[in-house]
Amino acid sequence: MHIEKTSDPKTLQLPAGFRAAGISAGIKKSGVKDMALIVSDVEAVMAGTFTTNQVCAAPVKLCRKHLEGRKGRAIIVNSGVANACTGTEGMKAAQDMAAQTASLLNVPETQVFVCSTGTIGKQLPMDVIGSGIQKIVPAVTVEGVHDAVEAIMTTDTRPKHCTLRIEVDGKPVTVMGMAKGAGMIEPGMATMLSFILTDAAVEADALQACLLAAVKKSFNLVSVDGDRSTNDTVLCMAGGAAGNKPLSPAHRDWKVFSDALYRVAFDLAMKIIGDGEGARKVVRIEVKGALNDAEADIAARAVANSMLVKTSWVKDSPNWGRVMDALGYSRAKVDETLVDIDYDEHPAVRGGMASGSSVAELKKIVARECFVIKIDLHLGNGRAEVYSCDCTEEYVRINW
Amino acid sequence: MHIEKTSDPKTLQLPAGFRAAGISAGIKKSGVKDMALIVSDVEAVMAGTFTTNQVCAAPVKLCRKHLEGRKGRAIIVNSGVANACTGTEGMKAAQDMAAQTASLLNVPETQVFVCSTGTIGKQLPMDVIGSGIQKIVPAVTVEGVHDAVEAIMTTDTRPKHCTLRIEVDGKPVTVMGMAKGAGMIEPGMATMLSFILTDAAVEADALQACLLAAVKKSFNLVSVDGDRSTNDTVLCMAGGAAGNKPLSPAHRDWKVFSDALYRVAFDLAMKIIGDGEGARKVVRIEVKGALNDAEADIAARAVANSMLVKTSWVKDSPNWGRVMDALGYSRAKVDETLVDIDYDEHPAVRGGMASGSSVAELKKIVARECFVIKIDLHLGNGRAEVYSCDCTEEYVRINW
Repeated sequence: MHIEKTSDPKTLQLPAGFRAAGISAGIKKSGVKDMALIVSDVEAVMAGTFTTNQVCAAPVKLCRKHLEGRKGRAIIVNSGVANACTGTEGMKAAQDMAAQTASLLNVPETQVFVCSTGTIGKQLPMDVIGSGIQKIVPAVTVEGVHDAVEAIMTTDTRPKHCTLRIEVDGKPVTVMGMAKGAGMIEPGMATMLSFILTDAAVEADALQACLLAAVKKSFNLVSVDGDRSTNDTVLCMAGGAAGNKPLSPAHRDWKVFSDALYRVAFDLAMKIIGDGEGARKVVRIEVKGALNDAEADIAARAVANSMLVKTSWVKDSPNWGRVMDALGYSRAKVDETLVDIDYDEHPAVRGGMASGSSVAELKKIVARECFVIKIDLHLGNGRAEVYSCDCTEEYVRINW
Repeated sequence: MHIEKTSDPKTLQLPAGFRAAGISAGIKKSGVKDMALIVSDVEAVMAGTFTTNQVCAAPVKLCRKHLEGRKGRAIIVNSGVANACTGTEGMKAAQDMAAQTASLLNVPETQVFVCSTGTIGKQLPMDVIGSGIQKIVPAVTVEGVHDAVEAIMTTDTRPKHCTLRIEVDGKPVTVMGMAKGAGMIEPGMATMLSFILTDAAVEADALQACLLAAVKKSFNLVSVDGDRSTNDTVLCMAGGAAGNKPLSPAHRDWKVFSDALYRVAFDLAMKIIGDGEGARKVVRIEVKGALNDAEADIAARAVANSMLVKTSWVKDSPNWGRVMDALGYSRAKVDETLVDIDYDEHPAVRGGMASGSSVAELKKIVARECFVIKIDLHLGNGRAEVYSCDCTEEYVRINW
């Protein structure tokens, strides 16, 4: 398995009809960039999906409301403060962020989407936010996307983005996405912050369905620490500057477009797990032979989130006993005498016992930057996969 | 909150009618003690409870079978190899351990209980085990219990035991217990290894019920890392040398006895969490106001097992936002606007938002060696508590 962990800045490009900016508004005391703005020149079709956490941030609640109209002109984002657990004051702050941005852009307030990421439980410094908005609105440019991808970072060690070019109706279309996220990551139905932009024209219901399908097979498959955030948000804007006939499943180029959107989402999800707090390797846990797909997912997540499994990878230990233990305590049905486990191309477990492969061989696989643990429960046809990372001392240091 | 983390060797004493030993059999290459034996001079009434993990070790399967007879004479224990995921060869090894011990003690094989703890997936070195049994059986003495409590240790940094003295029918009765466990600990219905011995005479059904009740409120409330072991076992032997009328719920001293058994189990559970791998502090998570007790338990465990909550304690951070996040993604019903959280005597959260307590005050509490996080969900009458510990860099180093 190979995954691309870093994003090449030379490939980063906004789709036609979008501008962006990233600035230091002064929310973070370190002076690094902490505010981003994405603007569509025209009313874009919007799709979105959000955290399933019952405790959810004010901007998530506001985005859910604004998404009802399925139209968007801008996304205003701050890092440093999550605006979660902030009550009515926090809700008013999110609304003010939208209102102030809308007023300066001269667009409807309900077409401005707000995202925040950072510490939970603190109120936003609205004077700082206000002057930040004054500064960022006139700053948006096509090149400003380079600053925007930096401004949404928190504990991320590098910006995460992906730009793909396809053709729809013979016209060039760009699908680009950016994301932030490194900790508090086990998305429920959406994840951390990610914004996917395209100049394709897309019908609203089709765009929403396409985004949900892509997120399910990308962001929702990664887990850094099993902690699902209060602020997870994926927003998708389709501006239509490409001039194609609006895309829907009936369009002959629908598959090309929906594949591109999925590939962008998957690329960003891999960059998130590849930049997991303190992590040095990415491990795909594949489960097949479960009673059904839901049970396969439960079994895969038990392995992906086991502290003992994740710490064993740090020093390249092929400790499959801990994988067996995690499968056993998962809520998925497991018959230990039927379990087979492979590490990449090498068998590790057959019928619930050591396969006879040498520990040295397995150790070489676990030493790889990316590898796959393939589990067959031999009980049914259920399949699932989840991406995890090792849990290092650095993870502890980042979060204490 | 104060808990006793260490066991005073001066207080350690076997109940009348028991002998024990601990030796270095050579299973662990380091040469430390790795085999223990507990012997009852007479047929003792046995009770026991085991891991709920679907992947379970051969000795657990054997103990479950032997427990059907409710009688026991001996417990033979090895550390270093867990004899889990070892198939029919492992099952035969567990049976051989029982048979060889029984033969030398001249007692029925079904009255010998076998426990193993250590690495999963390796076969027991039966030649080493065999000569160890030859050596340990003649070595049992009353004082040998000091060696036995050491021989069951794996990553434990100190032996764990507790001895209580009570009166039943006016006769002195001793209840003593020992335990091992520091990692792979979130017991399901039993936990790690623990042996509780008493010279009281107790009816078999009463002893089993009493043990289950005690375990539910002690071992089952602690979680070091959310990883439930394949080998968790608690065994209880009541020898009867005290000469009391057999105890059952109808006996006037039943409450005294059952309380003593609970207190021993609770003391051992606290010593286990207090010696959690790499841990420096013990935190009780109390949840009340949940829809029911089961939901309270789910909410408490979500907090207790959150990597972000556990790492935040390392440097004394009162990061209640992470507690709110964990409550929100737990499967328990939570309305964030109703949640109150206190750290010991200080309010941290009221109605899902910062209470106004100073961070410095809360930090002082989190700096304590033991403290309580009290959560009120204000939804119903469900209550639960779980004991957790901080997750340090040392935990990662122990397990890589």
